[in-house]
Amino acid sequence: MLPRPSGVVCFLTDFGARDPYVGLMKGMTLRACPRATLVDLTHDVEAQDVALGAFFLATAIGRFPTGTVHVAVVDPSVSTSRRALCAVAHDGYWIGPDNGVLGEVLASGVFDVRAVDFEALGLVPASRTFHGRDVFAPLAGGLAGGRFGFAAVGPRCSDPVRREPLLAGAHRVVHVDAHGNLVTNVPATAIATARSVHIGGRSVPVRGTCADAPKGGLVALVNSYDLLEIAENEGSAAATLRLGRGAPVTLENGSA
Amino acid sequence: MLPRPSGVVCFLTDFGARDPYVGLMKGMTLRACPRATLVDLTHDVEAQDVALGAFFLATAIGRFPTGTVHVAVVDPSVSTSRRALCAVAHDGYWIGPDNGVLGEVLASGVFDVRAVDFEALGLVPASRTFHGRDVFAPLAGGLAGGRFGFAAVGPRCSDPVRREPLLAGAHRVVHVDAHGNLVTNVPATAIATARSVHIGGRSVPVRGTCADAPKGGLVALVNSYDLLEIAENEGSAAATLRLGRGAPVTLENGSA
Amino acid sequence: MLPRPSGVVCFLTDFGARDPYVGLMKGMTLRACPRATLVDLTHDVEAQDVALGAFFLATAIGRFPTGTVHVAVVDPSVSTSRRALCAVAHDGYWIGPDNGVLGEVLASGVFDVRAVDFEALGLVPASRTFHGRDVFAPLAGGLAGGRFGFAAVGPRCSDPVRREPLLAGAHRVVHVDAHGNLVTNVPATAIATARSVHIGGRSVPVRGTCADAPKGGLVALVNSYDLLEIAENEGSAAATLRLGRGAPVTLENGSA
Repeated sequence: MLPRPSGVVCFLTDFGARDPYVGLMKGMTLRACPRATLVDLTHDVEAQDVALGAFFLATAIGRFPTGTVHVAVVDPSVSTSRRALCAVAHDGYWIGPDNGVLGEVLASGVFDVRAVDFEALGLVPASRTFHGRDVFAPLAGGLAGGRFGFAAVGPRCSDPVRREPLLAGAHRVVHVDAHGNLVTNVPATAIATARSVHIGGRSVPVRGTCADAPKGGLVALVNSYDLLEIAENEGSAAATLRLGRGAPVTLENGSA
Repeated sequence: MLPRPSGVVCFLTDFGARDPYVGLMKGMTLRACPRATLVDLTHDVEAQDVALGAFFLATAIGRFPTGTVHVAVVDPSVSTSRRALCAVAHDGYWIGPDNGVLGEVLASGVFDVRAVDFEALGLVPASRTFHGRDVFAPLAGGLAGGRFGFAAVGPRCSDPVRREPLLAGAHRVVHVDAHGNLVTNVPATAIATARSVHIGGRSVPVRGTCADAPKGGLVALVNSYDLLEIAENEGSAAATLRLGRGAPVTLENGSA
Repeated sequence: MLPRPSGVVCFLTDFGARDPYVGLMKGMTLRACPRATLVDLTHDVEAQDVALGAFFLATAIGRFPTGTVHVAVVDPSVSTSRRALCAVAHDGYWIGPDNGVLGEVLASGVFDVRAVDFEALGLVPASRTFHGRDVFAPLAGGLAGGRFGFAAVGPRCSDPVRREPLLAGAHRVVHVDAHGNLVTNVPATAIATARSVHIGGRSVPVRGTCADAPKGGLVALVNSYDLLEIAENEGSAAATLRLGRGAPVTLENGSA
């Protein structure tokens, strides 16, 4: 079923904050939908890191009002012949280039996926390099404000581009957050019986929260993404262990 | 008296911008109050620096619409048995963990403080580590949109956790802002008769504004927080003096 | 003609994100106009770089709803006798110190410029150093919400301060964006017949988009500002060439 647009538009990009790019996308969104409520998921995805963008985007599932329009622009191949997608999935709308950035969201809960026909919508890019501003933002605003109905966006698309998910592959650190917490791809279910994890030559005990360790102590815990995370109580696990993305982690199982 | 909620929700955290954490808090706030107006005070409080967070939070007093809901999440002890607070003070609502982050706001103008009973409100954390998303944001949205009345938030709390304020103690630099200005804990009243201040082996004249010095010159002035600040005209005082947080400063009094 | 205020207020400053300065401006804007929609153009203009701020501000022309109020605070001479301006130009309102930060916007499409009489508007700065919070934000909110009519803002101003535009002068890099793209001051029209450009000892081919180069390859393209930009496919041209702002660039013309 098509959710009724909530008027909320949520943005994820790798544009960072130092340029006006995100602001210009928002301006163009408001031109199409002056009463939209604009939210940033994050704009600090590593440059052109589609897999990380796809992972972050999926954290929004179920956390926004029904009918939110999500726009994800991590787009290394802007202006080539790559398609753009607009999907209804879970309880929202999802817009982005067809390069896998919507992949984690579309891995479940898909109702309908369209290949956007910008020309039919009257959206012609003013530039060859900034489709976020020129076409994705007006499309998002148009959907959020009811100017475009979903069915008019373009023809059904049955073959969105697939990409290896960030969480696939060997157990390892997939992201370091701003506190220096090491986010891994190990799902919560896998550590149900583990007593500790091995990382960076250290054995780190599995605990409920950071505060279960002494100050400066390391803990392995289930984070808010339901993934194993290595954290330091009032410190940075990344700095203490001198580890970053890609560092291997192994579970040390024991009887509970 | 209870101010009428304005629909504005203002966020302060130490989450930074590179993760989706702040965006997810906003999404959850909008789920509880789709018409809320969302504002960021700052998300770049030093990690887990409750005293700095408390200081920044208090700068918002009197600067937002009456009935604004302020949410402050600097929460090193998340998920332990620490309480959460919801207060009416000055002309707004203030929500945060009971660890002192609301301390500067509650140092005056308090009308009522409650220990939040999340269970009674039907708010159950989906994670053990991200109460900002799971309970603080829905509470803020619920208050802003009128879903919860303040009286229903929880029982009166007469003993909020107290913490040494950032501005207490010896005269020193307490913060370096993005321009390299050295913010001190010296109140404006203390420098009324000072002609200069001594810092980093230099004597710096007291002036009205940065522009009262030649380009590259240092001045001591009363900043917008009504505190003594060392600034450089078109430059960074922090870089020039090679000083940061904690650097001592002394007043050099003279007859006016 | 005076555009009808849209309720959108857009902010550009050099305040960065780590301090509450921008949040306080927004709070004061909402006090004057509780239903305003707030957007950030950018707050990461290099500190006190009025020319860069003026350039970024002008990128907003035509990209926001008609009647948007734009506030630009890059203000090295705050609190001196410098005037403040409020202009109607293109289809919006533009507010800022009279130091050239509005210069690129006012280079065309001007309908009316006023020197703001804050006293007549009842806006008295609470500080000598933060006019963004104390007077620019309330003025912006007052205009956006209809509390002040434009004609009441102050007397006509026929001599705004002029400043050398960022794009003037020899062909060079004027900005490095967050992806490491080198933005130059060479207009798109100038490279219509160029086959390549010379920069940092390298000859870089003119192409349509980044994706027209192999991975790691450099291209010269027309960017979304209609300027020549040196980019690297899935990489940082700034890092590869070890170049930054000010680096000279020359066109290598050839018959097409």
